[in-house]
Amino acid sequence: MQKLDVAVLGATGAVGQRFIQLLENHPWFRVAEVVGSERSAGRRYGEAARWVLDGEAPASALDLPVKPLDAPLNSPLVFSALPKEAADIREIELAAEGHVVCTNASSNRMVEDVPLLLPEVNADHVGLIDIQRQQRGWSGALVANSNCTAMPVVMALAPLRQFGVSKVAIVSQQATSGAGYPGVAALDILDNVVPYVGGEEDKLETEPLRMLGAFDGGRVQWLPAIVSSSCNRVSVVDGHLVNVSVELEAKPSLEAVIEAWESFRGAEPVPSLPSAPAEPLHYFRQPDRPQIRRDRGYGKGMTTSIGRLRPCPILGYKFVALSHNTIRGAAGGSILNAELLAVQGFIPQFQPDAEAVR
Amino acid sequence: MQKLDVAVLGATGAVGQRFIQLLENHPWFRVAEVVGSERSAGRRYGEAARWVLDGEAPASALDLPVKPLDAPLNSPLVFSALPKEAADIREIELAAEGHVVCTNASSNRMVEDVPLLLPEVNADHVGLIDIQRQQRGWSGALVANSNCTAMPVVMALAPLRQFGVSKVAIVSQQATSGAGYPGVAALDILDNVVPYVGGEEDKLETEPLRMLGAFDGGRVQWLPAIVSSSCNRVSVVDGHLVNVSVELEAKPSLEAVIEAWESFRGAEPVPSLPSAPAEPLHYFRQPDRPQIRRDRGYGKGMTTSIGRLRPCPILGYKFVALSHNTIRGAAGGSILNAELLAVQGFIPQFQPDAEAVR
Amino acid sequence: MQKLDVAVLGATGAVGQRFIQLLENHPWFRVAEVVGSERSAGRRYGEAARWVLDGEAPASALDLPVKPLDAPLNSPLVFSALPKEAADIREIELAAEGHVVCTNASSNRMVEDVPLLLPEVNADHVGLIDIQRQQRGWSGALVANSNCTAMPVVMALAPLRQFGVSKVAIVSQQATSGAGYPGVAALDILDNVVPYVGGEEDKLETEPLRMLGAFDGGRVQWLPAIVSSSCNRVSVVDGHLVNVSVELEAKPSLEAVIEAWESFRGAEPVPSLPSAPAEPLHYFRQPDRPQIRRDRGYGKGMTTSIGRLRPCPILGYKFVALSHNTIRGAAGGSILNAELLAVQGFIPQFQPDAEAVR
Amino acid sequence: MQKLDVAVLGATGAVGQRFIQLLENHPWFRVAEVVGSERSAGRRYGEAARWVLDGEAPASALDLPVKPLDAPLNSPLVFSALPKEAADIREIELAAEGHVVCTNASSNRMVEDVPLLLPEVNADHVGLIDIQRQQRGWSGALVANSNCTAMPVVMALAPLRQFGVSKVAIVSQQATSGAGYPGVAALDILDNVVPYVGGEEDKLETEPLRMLGAFDGGRVQWLPAIVSSSCNRVSVVDGHLVNVSVELEAKPSLEAVIEAWESFRGAEPVPSLPSAPAEPLHYFRQPDRPQIRRDRGYGKGMTTSIGRLRPCPILGYKFVALSHNTIRGAAGGSILNAELLAVQGFIPQFQPDAEAVR
Repeated sequence: MQKLDVAVLGATGAVGQRFIQLLENHPWFRVAEVVGSERSAGRRYGEAARWVLDGEAPASALDLPVKPLDAPLNSPLVFSALPKEAADIREIELAAEGHVVCTNASSNRMVEDVPLLLPEVNADHVGLIDIQRQQRGWSGALVANSNCTAMPVVMALAPLRQFGVSKVAIVSQQATSGAGYPGVAALDILDNVVPYVGGEEDKLETEPLRMLGAFDGGRVQWLPAIVSSSCNRVSVVDGHLVNVSVELEAKPSLEAVIEAWESFRGAEPVPSLPSAPAEPLHYFRQPDRPQIRRDRGYGKGMTTSIGRLRPCPILGYKFVALSHNTIRGAAGGSILNAELLAVQGFIPQFQPDAEAVR
Repeated sequence: MQKLDVAVLGATGAVGQRFIQLLENHPWFRVAEVVGSERSAGRRYGEAARWVLDGEAPASALDLPVKPLDAPLNSPLVFSALPKEAADIREIELAAEGHVVCTNASSNRMVEDVPLLLPEVNADHVGLIDIQRQQRGWSGALVANSNCTAMPVVMALAPLRQFGVSKVAIVSQQATSGAGYPGVAALDILDNVVPYVGGEEDKLETEPLRMLGAFDGGRVQWLPAIVSSSCNRVSVVDGHLVNVSVELEAKPSLEAVIEAWESFRGAEPVPSLPSAPAEPLHYFRQPDRPQIRRDRGYGKGMTTSIGRLRPCPILGYKFVALSHNTIRGAAGGSILNAELLAVQGFIPQFQPDAEAVR
Repeated sequence: MQKLDVAVLGATGAVGQRFIQLLENHPWFRVAEVVGSERSAGRRYGEAARWVLDGEAPASALDLPVKPLDAPLNSPLVFSALPKEAADIREIELAAEGHVVCTNASSNRMVEDVPLLLPEVNADHVGLIDIQRQQRGWSGALVANSNCTAMPVVMALAPLRQFGVSKVAIVSQQATSGAGYPGVAALDILDNVVPYVGGEEDKLETEPLRMLGAFDGGRVQWLPAIVSSSCNRVSVVDGHLVNVSVELEAKPSLEAVIEAWESFRGAEPVPSLPSAPAEPLHYFRQPDRPQIRRDRGYGKGMTTSIGRLRPCPILGYKFVALSHNTIRGAAGGSILNAELLAVQGFIPQFQPDAEAVR
Repeated sequence: MQKLDVAVLGATGAVGQRFIQLLENHPWFRVAEVVGSERSAGRRYGEAARWVLDGEAPASALDLPVKPLDAPLNSPLVFSALPKEAADIREIELAAEGHVVCTNASSNRMVEDVPLLLPEVNADHVGLIDIQRQQRGWSGALVANSNCTAMPVVMALAPLRQFGVSKVAIVSQQATSGAGYPGVAALDILDNVVPYVGGEEDKLETEPLRMLGAFDGGRVQWLPAIVSSSCNRVSVVDGHLVNVSVELEAKPSLEAVIEAWESFRGAEPVPSLPSAPAEPLHYFRQPDRPQIRRDRGYGKGMTTSIGRLRPCPILGYKFVALSHNTIRGAAGGSILNAELLAVQGFIPQFQPDAEAVR
């Protein structure tokens, strides 16, 4: 099987680097084009990108020339780690030109014909692509993935929809990498907690409802629940942890909730996609887990860890959930989305072999 | 005015050291006796105490001999930083013998005739001392201060009682010093958040209701509210921050809530006590304050900082509060309690001059 | 005594803020003018400066209008926290116009007629001001203070000059605040050490020799020693610690070295200046001190802490030294310089009262 | 090929856990026995060991019964992570009984007939085992690996022996995991550097000389160099970084030194051992590398990273080196030692297949 050429927009930033890292040796995709800022354009990737992830940049990417944002692209599949302003225009141009664009930007997440995709949770939302193409006359597509803090919330709530999720209270503790690079200043976070992350609470109170909603063939019906969120920045490198309280109308037992989490798998073909973790959710029975540093890497950063389920005197249930914010919550999530699009035939001229789906 | 001799129990531990530090140059009290573990007894304080606070131990304490736990004490006033097990027996013996014991231990906080005292909030709870003395035949007294994480919650809720506090949801982010010394291992907290603090959630769901309750002359009627709490340990030295959502039955405006905080002062003589801060509460109008490192020292660590009041879609109101856990939330709070007891004549043979009360 | 109006250049940055903080309630000086970047100019200081120090900005500064860099200034005394490029031109213009400029910038530190002043160490270098005025035709003056990492080295070596300092090997561990704000990215320093601080090693290998040199009436004769330095950035907020090995030709005993440190005081009037610490140097006898967090605040951040003197098998002596980098190593050091200039009559029309010098 | 049963002493501690983790899926060895403290003995490993490494304990180890320290062992190969006191007696008993003991303890590192083994550097020191067996009448053997801070120094200096190493000055910055678990208290290291690690400087000034020495068939002739060291504890999880200055008598060019590092490989069979990294040394050309967090994982934690070679005005050359202290510097190093012993026939009744040596 020949690998599909992909482009990465915003490739020199922190999330862009994570794309480059995770796509190294990907079984289906190979990075053929990297797009950067004006400052970077024209230089080799290895020179333009100040590598901020642990370890070194993959050797295969070092010599790629960084293209400017407006350069025409040849790759059918485009991953975008662009900042919001740049994303607004360019992603839509590329989708209109026939590219399938998987984006991390928040710009289009809540637009009605753009799937806010999380394969284990709402794979059927890809149906919006047909509507999107029809309405906009596109041959390409634009697909978004969720905010990195919404990710552990949505993953943990997905299996609980059966119990009737009506109220959700979230308090987050978010890693510094969530703000990109350079992002958070050391002086702002050493020996500190900042109880504020600009714009984040609004996203947390809306995106999950759309992601957990039902696609009725025409549009996504939001989950009819109320969400309250409070966001904090803490002194960790990677990993977003949320303290969640939830009201479940069916009043299941605690064991029934844990059982729902432990048995949760997306529908086929999702569990067979190359980047899908063996366990989308892992429930820890120890009293003090999950912990950010110790558990963010679970399932190569693609598993959401949950723990401490116990009664909440106000909403009924409370627990802790954790996702790796730049893997599951950003680049890794976007790649999983693209894998789903690929097997479902949304990427023109590309179909993974049946046996390539593990 | 001659200073009153005081003893510090558990003087070599982290909270004990904070007592020693805060009592240095106290206008009314002077540390005359220090009590330590068996290992420390018989040594000079300067040798026995591995000083863990920033800076150096006060010179005046270095030469005090460390007494064993069962040594008879001469000081009328005793501050206790004993661990729970040691506190259980010894504090009661000392109170029975005529000492006024101000304790940080959790052992007796919820005992019906022991005031869980926070001067700005419930100064009238000292009335329980008369009942305590009568019931137990003591000439001394035992007075507790609150759990260090309950502190910012109670301080912030006290002025809101007028609006009818019915539900309170708390998520804490607690400093490592809350676990004493050596306490939290570096390997457990560097680049990490631990979403668990043993025993803390129970305390947070009960102590505030007793502290905020009304003393009816015979007992404290708990505030009839429901509290849910989730506790996290974060990578900071000092300072406990809480994200709080609260239901207020009177549905006041946000400005009315802020006004309640900003105008809050305890009743006289509390604001005139030597350790009382000029502002018991300080409300920050900046969007990203209070922050643990930057604001824990407000009012010499005795002010509770509040910020980010905004609507909560579930409970109506949410905000952030912060207290210094080893000053206001431990040693400093205990000293303020003792100052109140002193001016109200509860310490035998000691009465600060009228003008000494600033 | 009427206070002298002073201006602070670069007032909105991290070191600028430290000037504002330390000058609050200064007995001789009051901040009358603040100068900021183009972006800040025209706004109130309280709005323009995102306060990054712990606590809040002094109330007295909040309403000062921020002036642009090229605005004419009225204040006879000017403190500069400008970045190098801006400093190059403006500081010289102001000195030429008659202002006494005390600068933190590195631009002019090694210029032959500019004193690189550290009052306890080389107060006589102020003699260069006469030469400077004569050569340049200035009525004002330009005086520099040292690099923040050079500070603890120079302070510790000053009393050892009597023993013949011939070789000095330095390895630093520097706080993030040394890079200003935003400065070091959290992602670059959490759970990390970066063994590189751009440009710092060159400064460390030259500035100390000029500061420790002798003023012969015409120029400063550098201390004829060889210095090797290696600089590291570590995950702390404030405080630069250096591991130093030194060759002393007179081969004094360890006790003689400690005695030299403990008895070290600058010559009068330095010890009587308002910002001079009671102990310029403090030697710790404990085996594990000084420590950055615990000891950076010694002497209100103006004392250099030293510890661990022991034999070095290669150079003879080794020890550890620590200074607060934004107090003693920047703003506080600059203010102390200005106090010395004031009492010695270098500030036109301003002479502190004899009794004001404590 | 059947795997060899191995025992791990001190298996529940931090280094013991690293042994368990690294031996999971080892091609030659399988953990058959775990030995713990009295408190742990009799419990399942999964219960007795509070797992402190990132991720979870290997499933295969969870059900192993923890044996007491004095239990007879069946495994021919024994890895020891015992604390010094326990190691002193028990390791010698086991070696006498016929076990091959690879130890991390410092007790016997400097004993004349005990190899202080680092395969790429001094594989021929295994010749001491014959002498050890002859002198002591043992059928087993005792082999030590180096102090975790000495490791990067020795690795970096080994290829420079050809240039005549005469003086070495080391300043370390050491991770908290070097002190075991619980080890360093969070309160001692958050926002701090502690310029003291008990006992470490002595080890650093002697062990490298023995490791870099020549085995003459009878004993190890120490490298005739002078070492000075200063040790610091910093706020990182794993990874020890050293700033090294070195005098090389042959005065090679900087490029010749880099070339010596880059071409360095141990002699066969060392590079073919399962745990040997592809590059024992990696030289970084970037100005700010290696960094502890970003580079400690290089070569799965078995590569020593070097950077910043530049002239030292005092000793001639200076550079930075970094090793993962609990992998290369402890458990991983010990396992590599055992692999060497295995292929060289020192483990009774066990010989890896020729083709098993990759």
